[in-house]
Amino acid sequence: MAGINEPLNRKLRMALIGGGGNAFIGRVHAIAAQLDNRAELVAGALSSDPQRAQQAAPEFGIAPARAYSSAAKLITAESQLPEDERVDFVSIATPNHTHFEIARQALDAGFHVVCDKPMTISLDDAEELVKRVEETGRVFAVTHNYTGYPMIRQAREMIAAGELGRIIAARATYVQGWLWSLLPDVVPKRGVWKADPNKAGSGSLGDIGTHAYNLLRYATGLTPVDLSCLMQSYHPLRELDDYGHAAIRFENGASGLVTFSQVTHGRLNDLRIEIDGTKGSISWAQEQPNELFVRSLGQPLRVYERNPMAPYTNELGRAASRIPGGHPEAFFEAFANIYRAAFDDMISVANGATVNSRETIYPSVHDGREGVLFVQQCQASSANDAAWVQF
Amino acid sequence: MAGINEPLNRKLRMALIGGGGNAFIGRVHAIAAQLDNRAELVAGALSSDPQRAQQAAPEFGIAPARAYSSAAKLITAESQLPEDERVDFVSIATPNHTHFEIARQALDAGFHVVCDKPMTISLDDAEELVKRVEETGRVFAVTHNYTGYPMIRQAREMIAAGELGRIIAARATYVQGWLWSLLPDVVPKRGVWKADPNKAGSGSLGDIGTHAYNLLRYATGLTPVDLSCLMQSYHPLRELDDYGHAAIRFENGASGLVTFSQVTHGRLNDLRIEIDGTKGSISWAQEQPNELFVRSLGQPLRVYERNPMAPYTNELGRAASRIPGGHPEAFFEAFANIYRAAFDDMISVANGATVNSRETIYPSVHDGREGVLFVQQCQASSANDAAWVQF
Amino acid sequence: MAGINEPLNRKLRMALIGGGGNAFIGRVHAIAAQLDNRAELVAGALSSDPQRAQQAAPEFGIAPARAYSSAAKLITAESQLPEDERVDFVSIATPNHTHFEIARQALDAGFHVVCDKPMTISLDDAEELVKRVEETGRVFAVTHNYTGYPMIRQAREMIAAGELGRIIAARATYVQGWLWSLLPDVVPKRGVWKADPNKAGSGSLGDIGTHAYNLLRYATGLTPVDLSCLMQSYHPLRELDDYGHAAIRFENGASGLVTFSQVTHGRLNDLRIEIDGTKGSISWAQEQPNELFVRSLGQPLRVYERNPMAPYTNELGRAASRIPGGHPEAFFEAFANIYRAAFDDMISVANGATVNSRETIYPSVHDGREGVLFVQQCQASSANDAAWVQF
Amino acid sequence: MAGINEPLNRKLRMALIGGGGNAFIGRVHAIAAQLDNRAELVAGALSSDPQRAQQAAPEFGIAPARAYSSAAKLITAESQLPEDERVDFVSIATPNHTHFEIARQALDAGFHVVCDKPMTISLDDAEELVKRVEETGRVFAVTHNYTGYPMIRQAREMIAAGELGRIIAARATYVQGWLWSLLPDVVPKRGVWKADPNKAGSGSLGDIGTHAYNLLRYATGLTPVDLSCLMQSYHPLRELDDYGHAAIRFENGASGLVTFSQVTHGRLNDLRIEIDGTKGSISWAQEQPNELFVRSLGQPLRVYERNPMAPYTNELGRAASRIPGGHPEAFFEAFANIYRAAFDDMISVANGATVNSRETIYPSVHDGREGVLFVQQCQASSANDAAWVQF
Repeated sequence: MAGINEPLNRKLRMALIGGGGNAFIGRVHAIAAQLDNRAELVAGALSSDPQRAQQAAPEFGIAPARAYSSAAKLITAESQLPEDERVDFVSIATPNHTHFEIARQALDAGFHVVCDKPMTISLDDAEELVKRVEETGRVFAVTHNYTGYPMIRQAREMIAAGELGRIIAARATYVQGWLWSLLPDVVPKRGVWKADPNKAGSGSLGDIGTHAYNLLRYATGLTPVDLSCLMQSYHPLRELDDYGHAAIRFENGASGLVTFSQVTHGRLNDLRIEIDGTKGSISWAQEQPNELFVRSLGQPLRVYERNPMAPYTNELGRAASRIPGGHPEAFFEAFANIYRAAFDDMISVANGATVNSRETIYPSVHDGREGVLFVQQCQASSANDAAWVQF
Repeated sequence: MAGINEPLNRKLRMALIGGGGNAFIGRVHAIAAQLDNRAELVAGALSSDPQRAQQAAPEFGIAPARAYSSAAKLITAESQLPEDERVDFVSIATPNHTHFEIARQALDAGFHVVCDKPMTISLDDAEELVKRVEETGRVFAVTHNYTGYPMIRQAREMIAAGELGRIIAARATYVQGWLWSLLPDVVPKRGVWKADPNKAGSGSLGDIGTHAYNLLRYATGLTPVDLSCLMQSYHPLRELDDYGHAAIRFENGASGLVTFSQVTHGRLNDLRIEIDGTKGSISWAQEQPNELFVRSLGQPLRVYERNPMAPYTNELGRAASRIPGGHPEAFFEAFANIYRAAFDDMISVANGATVNSRETIYPSVHDGREGVLFVQQCQASSANDAAWVQF
Repeated sequence: MAGINEPLNRKLRMALIGGGGNAFIGRVHAIAAQLDNRAELVAGALSSDPQRAQQAAPEFGIAPARAYSSAAKLITAESQLPEDERVDFVSIATPNHTHFEIARQALDAGFHVVCDKPMTISLDDAEELVKRVEETGRVFAVTHNYTGYPMIRQAREMIAAGELGRIIAARATYVQGWLWSLLPDVVPKRGVWKADPNKAGSGSLGDIGTHAYNLLRYATGLTPVDLSCLMQSYHPLRELDDYGHAAIRFENGASGLVTFSQVTHGRLNDLRIEIDGTKGSISWAQEQPNELFVRSLGQPLRVYERNPMAPYTNELGRAASRIPGGHPEAFFEAFANIYRAAFDDMISVANGATVNSRETIYPSVHDGREGVLFVQQCQASSANDAAWVQF
Repeated sequence: MAGINEPLNRKLRMALIGGGGNAFIGRVHAIAAQLDNRAELVAGALSSDPQRAQQAAPEFGIAPARAYSSAAKLITAESQLPEDERVDFVSIATPNHTHFEIARQALDAGFHVVCDKPMTISLDDAEELVKRVEETGRVFAVTHNYTGYPMIRQAREMIAAGELGRIIAARATYVQGWLWSLLPDVVPKRGVWKADPNKAGSGSLGDIGTHAYNLLRYATGLTPVDLSCLMQSYHPLRELDDYGHAAIRFENGASGLVTFSQVTHGRLNDLRIEIDGTKGSISWAQEQPNELFVRSLGQPLRVYERNPMAPYTNELGRAASRIPGGHPEAFFEAFANIYRAAFDDMISVANGATVNSRETIYPSVHDGREGVLFVQQCQASSANDAAWVQF
């Protein structure tokens, strides 16, 4: 399964935009995409600084000739290469405000796209990308990477199969504390653009709140109706929001709650979800990702440990696992599962099939658009004293 | 310390109202009050059913002569006993709607009172009790028993001492699932009155939401400004709310969030708090009460285990402990800590001192009133689409 | 159930020997014995220092007239009181080397006995007590208090019922670190006699190793054949053993392993057991006593939370619980469960029945004797380079 | 850092022996070795079945021309390739009994070697490999992969720096339950050779006991003197040991204990270590590998979460991390850390330096030899009623 792209019988060729700076996410894309031996990173525009773009290339295994000084140059140059040389897909790991232009160009040039979240700053741009994806038929994945965890996939299938009954409530909390490392007179190395309203578009809401929201949607499949959001900016050096929560009402009457913070001292990357149904409830925490807690009145708490050989593991859970239970899988593998599923679709497209962008196991351009909408409506609500805003 | 009421040099005499039915809370009062050998249960009106009131008495160690068939009779009769025989305090463990009348009579008769929460159904009644307590100078404790846990006391002192810096956010969640045992054609044994709007006044909000709110207030000392609450009733046989969350804005700008559910399958009594300050954050869970998690950017997560001999244990934490660390203390001991602190005040009063009801280590009549206000304002907000309501 | 001694219809009267010093265990006996309102502490020989014995009495609620200056005086004086006044049982919470003489005298005087462990220093003494118990028909309980935890009782019944299949292995570890508080030139307050070979008889082995061994035996019911033990004394100020492990071979071929330490920095009272059967395995930890972990190949890990209302809770587990699940019960309640079961037998004896000391739910004089044998054989083995020694 | 082999300036070329069957470990080698973009798998002898060896090649990205039908053929053929084409190292992921011959040939042909454990079946063979490594100067790493976890590296440095004081005790337990999936009339897919005494050499002892022993040695650096081991074979279809424990005495007087089981129902891959020093103690569990528990008398339990940016993280811990704390790293990354460190040495050798095989951060041929010795001495001890056997 892994390591093979039948019937293509070759590795997919990857271009990476971004990743040459201090952020770690570019390297995560490189490792995750190549983990299963199905893709090879062959081109890059690793930095907006041309010299840095060249210098970083060897570390990523990119030949100097294909180390470009901008995304635009990469897309143009790769488009002109022979079909059996040029890249198949472009991975975008740059600051938020640049995603749209790169993604648009890549799609127009016929490349598949894997894009960081939030997908764009504006909803218009997001909708433009949806349109392009539908027109071009290209594969478009958004790295809401937490959806790649095997136990999240397991939960999604359990819920879809009705194992929890009707879903009545869903809560996600995403809590970090790294913002307290932002000190006066110290230029933060990592993610300086994340503090710039023009480049980030939003603060913690867009950085992590969207992940939490997306995870609830991914697991439950519920359709949101409206939301009420209240955000704060507690860090003294911070313009953008760094704390908040949003109540969400879903079409079936269920209650949603998304809480996010980047000012909770000492929390690293504490993303949790809890989902309540009429027949059972589940909970999961990203920092201990190999365990899914399943509860039902009067029964013992059941801990579903990631274990592809266990009878309780369903098809999605099994497909997202690489090694036996007890050998923990973690962040890279979950991230790689987004790529793996996108690769399956890229192979299908290469094979002449049409991919339905609304029925992907990986977060699609539509999820990307919904994330941007979520950010926008939360901002609108919070600015209006947490008034209810329609989705 | 325990087992002695100096300079009174005798045990305090206790009367228990309620406890003879299926609810477990009456027995908890009896065990908790007597745990430290400082009080003796000598009188009771254990049931509103006179026969049951008599039958249950021996189990509680109450002599037949002092097993009354109603609270009113108990209060009247005990008032007429000689001072060195009659009870010192009355513990009220009856359905919510009866608290007020019993408490009022007990205060008027000169007894101290320990009362279950919510203290009353209406705010007027609560304010009436505040007035009576101030007039009579009697001790009045409300069994928001979770404030009795040593690690909660430890947290309170840490926060008051500024160890977490300025508090910016506080979240409490209280999640249970027992309501799913409510089946058609089955009369629930435990807490049937809890489902009756007239007797309970509110549903899960009053039953557990008030505990969560009180615990946040107790630990942080923050002053609330307004709230926005959304409640639901998900159980098909349920009239009252069984799920909800309330956002709270505090005077110092901090954000509060209280989430409660009695419809989360398989959760037993899962009360948790998380408090974020500018210098550190803490978290605690009632089902593992001997551990307080303390976090600060860049430091290891520190788990403060309940341990009266440890240098990190502060005065409140130490005073609330009975045995060495690693020998777990739990629900009864926390409940007993409410009593223990109230006993200290009763002894003071017996000794001629005046007790300031606004500066007690146990939840006071003012906390009781605030809990009723919280319920009322949450109901008002929820009925108005989660509009903001002033405290 | 609790609070009543039918058909006796009165509380049992308790005498406490020891408890007036710095040790906490005397107070634990007092609280535990009286927790369910079935016994009353009325007499004591709380200290070997007569003045202290008097001073401590009020704190325990003992009248001056019955505060004796020695166990011998207590036994003599109480024996001469009218039958409806004198104590029913004597609880022994004194240093190890004094247990035998007190217990012997109490039995001879016709009192039931509840005795701390290790029951005696020498095996001869232990066997003498067995003989006396059999002759007198008195109730004799040894406070291997960890057997009183509801989830241990649950485990015992599960194993007896064959739910784990044939038991093949059992491991217990009991790890503490308080010995590091033993500093040069500092006289330890708590348990100074514990460091005296003549008074303690053994070090950590007798103090905690016996608990671990007893717990394995209690839960599994396996019969030991021989053991191989290796002990060390790591603390520089220590004469007695403070670290060790013993391998045990059981009659049915199962392997046992008991590990104990009082020199593991920072561990408080970390007693754990793991039991493997041919059909399932369980594990349990004293510091989180309300959870029993149950595992079986291919099934999710099942956490049996203490919950008397859950269908998975068996009779022993249910009988040992006092309050609903999620309301944690802990050390005192487990200790009280030893008393509760001993009280049941005392009532039976009062009612004319004969109690079979080999079939008690509480640890009996035979368990006490076996604990002493375990200590003796471990010492013999360790002194002989861990040679195998028969039970 | 990752992705670059300066001054070699190219990826290292890898050959994989084994991996084409049902075992998962071959794929783990492939993924782990290539994770950091520093090596490329270019040749393989993936199966002893020539057809299967060819079929499996594409999945591993190996060209048909370099998919050999035996290790011997691979070594011969690769040796004859030009220096800038032939592989740099050979990874051995075959059944135990074949390791020696393959490793010997690879060394003799001048290749570096990465070898699964146990390194050989016989001690003679192990010593022969030690000799060859010393003679050839080749890099030789044994995949005691659990030593690659960042928090184990952190622990090693902490202990070496004296942060725990003198080490007095070390316990490792490695518990699995998969053997219960071995059913009559069912040929196990995975690891059928593991049940064959001739091919495995030992049972659970060699399969997992050696990992546990190695991990203790790796973390503590203690020198063993002798051991006493008792093993059992509990599974009815099993010839080899499946359960056991070994006591170890170290030169400095410390006590060691290694416990292993593959018959503990429901345990997946539960490897834990606990190390006690005179100043502090630590514990760690493989299934939650990002947390190291650090304890010291009177201090809060400190949880060192894997976090390269935290001040508490030491050099070894930091170097073994790839991404920020809270983004869990797991099995693959730890395995890759063995490769990463071996690559560093391969580059050194390529650069003309001499590598001291006794001072590697990865487990070396000497550790491999010691593991074989441990197996042999445990077997000797167990066969002689757990008699003490010198190392």
